[in-house]
Amino acid sequence: MAHVHKLVLKGQTVPISTIQRIIKNNVNQCRKVSTNQGLWAAKTHDENSSNPVPVGEVKRYATDCMVSVGVKEDHASALADVLVAADYRGHYSHGLNRLEMYVQDIKSKICDGNAIPTVLKDKYSTALVNGQNSLGPVVGNFCMNLAIEKAKKHGVGWVAANNSNHYGIAGWYSMLAANQGLMGLSFTSTSPLVAPTRAKTATLGTNPITLAAPALNGDQFVLDMATCTVAVGKIELQRRKGLPIPEGWAIDTDGKITTSADVAMKGCLMPLGGAEETSGYKGYGLATLVEIFCGISAGATYGPNIRRWMDTKRKADLGQCFIAVDPECFASGFQTRMSDLMSHLRHMEPADPTKPILVAGDPERAHIALVDAEGGIRYHVNQINASAALAEKLKVKPMKHI
Amino acid sequence: MAHVHKLVLKGQTVPISTIQRIIKNNVNQCRKVSTNQGLWAAKTHDENSSNPVPVGEVKRYATDCMVSVGVKEDHASALADVLVAADYRGHYSHGLNRLEMYVQDIKSKICDGNAIPTVLKDKYSTALVNGQNSLGPVVGNFCMNLAIEKAKKHGVGWVAANNSNHYGIAGWYSMLAANQGLMGLSFTSTSPLVAPTRAKTATLGTNPITLAAPALNGDQFVLDMATCTVAVGKIELQRRKGLPIPEGWAIDTDGKITTSADVAMKGCLMPLGGAEETSGYKGYGLATLVEIFCGISAGATYGPNIRRWMDTKRKADLGQCFIAVDPECFASGFQTRMSDLMSHLRHMEPADPTKPILVAGDPERAHIALVDAEGGIRYHVNQINASAALAEKLKVKPMKHI
Ligand SMILES: NC(=O)c1ccc[n+]([C@@H]2O[C@H](COP(=O)([O-])OP(=O)(O)OC[C@H]3O[C@@H](n4cnc5c(N)ncnc54)[C@H](O)[C@@H]3O)[C@@H](O)[C@H]2O)c1
Ligand SMILES: NC(=O)c1ccc[n+]([C@@H]2O[C@H](COP(=O)([O-])OP(=O)(O)OC[C@H]3O[C@@H](n4cnc5c(N)ncnc54)[C@H](O)[C@@H]3O)[C@@H](O)[C@H]2O)c1
Repeated sequence: MAHVHKLVLKGQTVPISTIQRIIKNNVNQCRKVSTNQGLWAAKTHDENSSNPVPVGEVKRYATDCMVSVGVKEDHASALADVLVAADYRGHYSHGLNRLEMYVQDIKSKICDGNAIPTVLKDKYSTALVNGQNSLGPVVGNFCMNLAIEKAKKHGVGWVAANNSNHYGIAGWYSMLAANQGLMGLSFTSTSPLVAPTRAKTATLGTNPITLAAPALNGDQFVLDMATCTVAVGKIELQRRKGLPIPEGWAIDTDGKITTSADVAMKGCLMPLGGAEETSGYKGYGLATLVEIFCGISAGATYGPNIRRWMDTKRKADLGQCFIAVDPECFASGFQTRMSDLMSHLRHMEPADPTKPILVAGDPERAHIALVDAEGGIRYHVNQINASAALAEKLKVKPMKHI
Repeated sequence: MAHVHKLVLKGQTVPISTIQRIIKNNVNQCRKVSTNQGLWAAKTHDENSSNPVPVGEVKRYATDCMVSVGVKEDHASALADVLVAADYRGHYSHGLNRLEMYVQDIKSKICDGNAIPTVLKDKYSTALVNGQNSLGPVVGNFCMNLAIEKAKKHGVGWVAANNSNHYGIAGWYSMLAANQGLMGLSFTSTSPLVAPTRAKTATLGTNPITLAAPALNGDQFVLDMATCTVAVGKIELQRRKGLPIPEGWAIDTDGKITTSADVAMKGCLMPLGGAEETSGYKGYGLATLVEIFCGISAGATYGPNIRRWMDTKRKADLGQCFIAVDPECFASGFQTRMSDLMSHLRHMEPADPTKPILVAGDPERAHIALVDAEGGIRYHVNQINASAALAEKLKVKPMKHI
């Protein structure tokens, strides 16, 4: 457990006073934000939430599951790290709830859990990597470590990978770089769910963009965002509660904006910005930028030719991109200026006194602080049951809460 | 004039059939889009619009004005190119209407029109440049050319500049790289106009992001976007027409979303995404990314400490960032895949048959085609009058329409 904490928190701790302030002002807020992220999100003190499961125990369980289907220990552990980090940070849509999908991909041999990525092309600051259809986090760690090495030597490392798989939260990779004092960026193309502005069918993915940049005392700016307005999970949550969705989240099958969660589930997600009159085409442009950095650059699948979500008949061949940049190559004092800007933002006067201004990464830090305070991650009872069933099926030790 | 056309269109021509299709389907649309960009926008066939002014004549006039206040010919010409490109592409808010501002900056010695940027730090793929307070386009061209050179040698060139000035449309610089077969990116920090999510005062600029990437036959993807929902100019236009503005454009002085253009003019712009429930914090995160790549990296002013818009008392000391990447370092066939994706997008079935799906850069290409068809750029009569007055004041030959 100590190990997992260190992995996830490395360079990620903020001054204790900041955490305290964030927790104090923001935990309730944050619980809401973070627990809206996925279907399996736990609401603390909710009748549907489990007792906390220690972070180390979640990692042990996820690793065991992957090992049980033949994945070697270090690859299983790499995957588990990324899944646990998602839950720990409050992004339950990209954590344990996806474990069964990875297990299934290994069992059906759609993904090769033991393959080692290879470098196809290499030039001072760039590389093209063949992910060899290995697990997304194995490819991701390989590429980002290569980018980091290049950044240290040449100032920048820019690595594009083809033949990869779903790699979890994009922020994991950008933070690998930030933890070493570098700026880190990452991008991945994903299965089509988002309709371009003016269209009525999905041809682009939720294509996340992340930038992590180090500040003083381990503080970090961690922007990690899908380029659509919201994830499907948020719509599903509104549907279950029988609530409408705001304009700008989704369109119906005719391409019209809908406020019905039911209708939205059959339609498409909208790019960040929503309607054309609120510049949704900018989110669409950013999603296309991700395709260009990933599948188009790497010669992997892109846009409309990426396999559909949950299609397990053909391999994913996802394209991904990893960038590391050494701020020391520019003006000295980078981290001091980062902290100054972040401090300015966090201390601005809020419109609503109960909602302090946050910096990207703060909601996740508040969630981490909450998990730490409670001694573990609370899951929705459905997730706990699904995990128990999976443990039984794979004959691994079930996950234990405290 | 031939020269200017070549400069602006270089690598920018699309197959004639595409242009024809775009024009046919989209010119009216496009007129609306483009003429909404700025206060001085011309409405073709509008009682307020001038006869077309040939592109070469606009450039001649802008160059003469700058030379008349002591700027050397090549620097004056570099600035004129960027201003003319803005009007030619339909972004009137960043064209001729800003000329007087540049003239004023030179006359008051707030900006040194003849200074040559210098390289402060240089490492294989990176450089830190001191813009020496020269004109923004002089600094921008210097830095992007350096980035291009580095990309050709090392795969990537990443150049950050401090001590720069307003550099016009960001897309000018990304296209310099795309015209040479590279991916080009650029970013600039700008005076505070945008309120972070949950705040009620402006502390970030409209901070544009651009990516230009080459496709086959000179076609290009050119994303060039402010990270706020819309520019002030669009709000001002609604105000003049007595029309409301959509939710997500602006907040009032209490930080509440407003639909009144009048109220909005006294409030702040909102980041792309609008309200927090439609993920406006993602636009805020992207605006912060721009600060990190620009002022924070380059050691220039950033965020709240950038001079206010129209403050001509202190020098701007803007930070800017220029990136070039050679796609040949990744999988071969980049341009073919680019064209395939762009063609797929352009041929998707639209929700409204009168509004075809566009790719970033298409609205500007349609405007260019319109200008070419008409033999010049139509300006609002106010712009024509302002230009005539400036010509008289500076004793240069006034601009002639056809
Ligand atoms: N691998 C894939 O296929 C894939 C696809 C899409 C998304 N994802 C992942 O899903 C996760 C969730 O993405 P998302 O877009 O739903 O995230 P989100 O909307 O919850 O947060 C996006 C970013 O905004 C920041 N943020 C949130 N509220 C804020 C506020 N009030 N002020 C300032 N900043 C604030 C967060 O810290 C985060 O950096 C990410 O980790 C992403 O990488 C992965
Ligand atoms: N130098 C500065 O300080 C500064 C600051 C802000 C903006 N700017 C410039 O102002 C200009 C205008 O910025 P903006 O954000 O208002 O641009 P915009 O909203 O008009 O367009 C943004 C991008 O979206 C694309 N686009 C437009 N409609 C589309 C559609 N329906 N489908 C697909 N793509 C579409 C455009 O081609 C463009 O790439 C840019 O050139 C920018 O660089 C400069």
